[in-house]
Amino acid sequence: MTQKAIFYHAGCPVCVAAEDKITEVIDRNRFELEIVHLGDAPKRIDEAAANGVESVPALVIDGTALHINHGADLSALR
Amino acid sequence: MTQKAIFYHAGCPVCVAAEDKITEVIDRNRFELEIVHLGDAPKRIDEAAANGVESVPALVIDGTALHINHGADLSALR
Repeated sequence: MTQKAIFYHAGCPVCVAAEDKITEVIDRNRFELEIVHLGDAPKRIDEAAANGVESVPALVIDGTALHINHGADLSALR
Repeated sequence: MTQKAIFYHAGCPVCVAAEDKITEVIDRNRFELEIVHLGDAPKRIDEAAANGVESVPALVIDGTALHINHGADLSALR
C-alpha cells in the first residue's frame, strides 16, 4: 500500500531545485507523490496551511510538514 | 548503482523528527544513506559546510544541500 506525500511549491527557483531532488530521492514504490503549485492552485493554500506548511517548498508526509530550504512564506502567496 | 546521500543533524528534536521522515521516504534501492551526528563527529562540520549545509537537519544529495526545517545553525555547533 502506498502512502501519500504532497510537495507544495510556488514555481520559484528554490522550489524547482528542491522538487528535482525530492522527486529523485523519494521511494515511489511506497509513496504516491502529488506535486501542487500553489500559484496555479491558490485554493489549496488553506489545505497546505492546515498541513502545517509555513513556507514553500515543503513536503508533507503523514501530516508532517518538512520545509525544504526556503523559497517564500505561505503568507506571501495569499 | 547507488548514489550517496548524507543526512547531517545534531540530535535536536527537530533533527530527530526530520530524520524519521527522511529515512522513511528515501529510496534505499537507489540511495545509500549516511547519517552524521555533528555533535558526535564535530570534525565533519567543515565537510558539511563544504557541502553547502548552513543549518541542521540537512540532507545532501549530489552536492546539493536540502535544509529540512530548522534545528540549529551550523555556526552554533562549532
